[in-house]
Amino acid sequence: MERILNKETVKYVNKKVMVSGWVNVRRDHGKIIFLDLRDRSGILQVVFTEESKDYKKAEIIKPEYVVSITGKVAKRPLKMVNKNIETGKVELQGQTLEILSEAETLPIEVNDKNIELQLDTLLDNRPLTIRTERNRKIFKVFETVLKAYAEKMRDLGFTEIKTPKILGAATEGGANFFTLDYFGRKAFLAQSPQFYKQIMVGAFERVFEIDPVFRAEKHFTTRHMNEYISLDAEIGFIKSFEDITNTLTEVIRYIFDEFKKRNAEEMKFFKLDVPKVPKRIPMIKLKDVKKIIGEKYNYKISDDTDIDPQGERLAGEYAKEKYNSDFIFLTHYPKNFRPFYTMPSKDGVETEGFDLLFKGLEIATGSQRIHQYKDLVESIKRHKLNPEDFSFYLQTFKYGMPPHGGWGMGLERIVYKILNLSNVKEACLFPRDVRRIIP
Amino acid sequence: MERILNKETVKYVNKKVMVSGWVNVRRDHGKIIFLDLRDRSGILQVVFTEESKDYKKAEIIKPEYVVSITGKVAKRPLKMVNKNIETGKVELQGQTLEILSEAETLPIEVNDKNIELQLDTLLDNRPLTIRTERNRKIFKVFETVLKAYAEKMRDLGFTEIKTPKILGAATEGGANFFTLDYFGRKAFLAQSPQFYKQIMVGAFERVFEIDPVFRAEKHFTTRHMNEYISLDAEIGFIKSFEDITNTLTEVIRYIFDEFKKRNAEEMKFFKLDVPKVPKRIPMIKLKDVKKIIGEKYNYKISDDTDIDPQGERLAGEYAKEKYNSDFIFLTHYPKNFRPFYTMPSKDGVETEGFDLLFKGLEIATGSQRIHQYKDLVESIKRHKLNPEDFSFYLQTFKYGMPPHGGWGMGLERIVYKILNLSNVKEACLFPRDVRRIIP
Repeated sequence: MERILNKETVKYVNKKVMVSGWVNVRRDHGKIIFLDLRDRSGILQVVFTEESKDYKKAEIIKPEYVVSITGKVAKRPLKMVNKNIETGKVELQGQTLEILSEAETLPIEVNDKNIELQLDTLLDNRPLTIRTERNRKIFKVFETVLKAYAEKMRDLGFTEIKTPKILGAATEGGANFFTLDYFGRKAFLAQSPQFYKQIMVGAFERVFEIDPVFRAEKHFTTRHMNEYISLDAEIGFIKSFEDITNTLTEVIRYIFDEFKKRNAEEMKFFKLDVPKVPKRIPMIKLKDVKKIIGEKYNYKISDDTDIDPQGERLAGEYAKEKYNSDFIFLTHYPKNFRPFYTMPSKDGVETEGFDLLFKGLEIATGSQRIHQYKDLVESIKRHKLNPEDFSFYLQTFKYGMPPHGGWGMGLERIVYKILNLSNVKEACLFPRDVRRIIP
Repeated sequence: MERILNKETVKYVNKKVMVSGWVNVRRDHGKIIFLDLRDRSGILQVVFTEESKDYKKAEIIKPEYVVSITGKVAKRPLKMVNKNIETGKVELQGQTLEILSEAETLPIEVNDKNIELQLDTLLDNRPLTIRTERNRKIFKVFETVLKAYAEKMRDLGFTEIKTPKILGAATEGGANFFTLDYFGRKAFLAQSPQFYKQIMVGAFERVFEIDPVFRAEKHFTTRHMNEYISLDAEIGFIKSFEDITNTLTEVIRYIFDEFKKRNAEEMKFFKLDVPKVPKRIPMIKLKDVKKIIGEKYNYKISDDTDIDPQGERLAGEYAKEKYNSDFIFLTHYPKNFRPFYTMPSKDGVETEGFDLLFKGLEIATGSQRIHQYKDLVESIKRHKLNPEDFSFYLQTFKYGMPPHGGWGMGLERIVYKILNLSNVKEACLFPRDVRRIIP
């Protein structure tokens, strides 16, 4: 007999079917055994009575046993309909039961709908805790963002690329690289696909990449991980950096539209309203936002200092209050806060660079880039770096590059903030931080 | 004026437009200058005569200059139509020309349609060579495989996951791991998402992942790279390993259908016939194929040795000759050729494992896995490994796992063989091998 999915049972009333899955909950009422069977499509109630052929087997079932059950689908009486599950109008009258795999007594409940565990417990036991409804729902939303991003980028004429994660040189001249042994040579893990995606503008004009990046930063915060999925993009033939922010706005809007469309159940579970993405996300210069949060919230950040997390939170608060927007672009970061490839503004002090904040958290960073070979070489020197260390990157610019720019966006941060989780690590299956590399 | 794409010009006959791109070729006929302008949509011929406003600027143009040109779109006389390019029915009568970026004299031609470079020259100059028609076409096919794989997996009810590439322990007990320094601790780069994708079967039953994997193997062949994109899948509630090979066949068929649909131009360029994927890919036991190639091609492989590349080539030849198929599944590899988690066959010697060959090259490896906790612990011990080193992986199996299995498939190998390239590295933007980590 072919297995059907739990959610398909509603189409088989009074028919015999086979279902398979994990036993989520077992409840005994006198001689009647109720099993909530969980499969990838949802939950189904199964009933075993003393008349059932494999009643004896049902008696030994414990949570997380993996079973295949045959039986007849029956309509539940109207007052017994369970509105909380998709198959609530029916139940399965169990006949045979095959145990595919047993389970030890669980150290942690996985069948509690609203279970919210301590982060360390959650992550130490990820193989088990990933089975809870809450966690499966988080990663359904994760998948929506992943899919929606690729869909929209393709729709906008971007070509998907894959660039290397093992690098022969520490690009961008920064610190915070993980180093590895590459057949006796020192190599580095990519912090971002920055140089490669720019190079690829030379071939495809518009490219995107969805791949892990690695940051050897010693942060231990609710916002950082040492490995995360970066949603990257680079766009050629832009007229100004607003071509980038406008495209990013379109992409963000699509992601949230898809979330609304595909994740109704998750929204209900997390009691969420989907943030509206305004037609035009408010945009404000960094120096102006510093002035505003200084005056309005009495939070002072000097001109020589980059905005800090608390500053970003207040900028987010301001965006909400003033523009009723969960999003805000902070723009024109001064040159000394930005990498050498960032296009300077005409004033020679600021840059054509921006961050996108969502609910007061930076989720994306981007800029227009320098595209003239000579300007780029000069900028590398001004940053006290050696142009010879960037020869393959510079080759691109020797042979004609259009005005271009792009962004990097943190996938897990979007999920973290959409769902109002307590830590970005909840939005990563197996997060890495300064203490954690297992599981 | 808004830029339009080259291919859109055919809709603007007798209208004034602006186009932008790279100068692919410049030809002078007396006082007339012809520029082939390349953008992401294709090639457009632009003509400058002495009457053109920016004729003087056109005179200094060299290949790879990035320009924006305005002018009037004109129909070409019938006998002048260029059938090799999509915009061949029209040309642009150039008026103004803006140079966005200059280019030095090229060390390598990039405008030769059929340029096939020495591999080292190709890769050393990737920022430039990626601009050739041949290479852009390779990565258009690459993108098709990437996209088609995700589409089909979703269609089959698989959930996309992202699992870590930095590992705290060398999984699978194998050698060939790159090691890295993780804040003073030793860590490893993932060779495959094997354990994680199995764990995720416990939550979503069917999962897939598209991500880089890293192999510290000292091979230097036309088939190996040290970093590549692995198309992974894991399926729960299978009845036998043929559920895996059947699903994989469906996926492969979809990829090739999409290739046929989307890459007509590439097929023409590479003078290709799309391999047909048979309804049922022929399947043959490893021991039988060894016997056949021993008898038929006088190529002997002993029972204690795994099949080698030449053996695979001959198996591919046999599949073509006997079944007229570019594909063949080799099955039932003996236990000692396979990792500890592979499900043994009933005879206790062979396994429920397979390789998929395409044109005589292994493109995918898969198997049914052991799903019973006790069997798995025993198998780990039999492989002289310590179960304690696998505690987080084993946790999954303590709490109920269905019969399951899956595959890993090399994206670049598919592209390499579809296009009959000379080396798998041609199908990777920035390949890594034992000698090469730059660019």
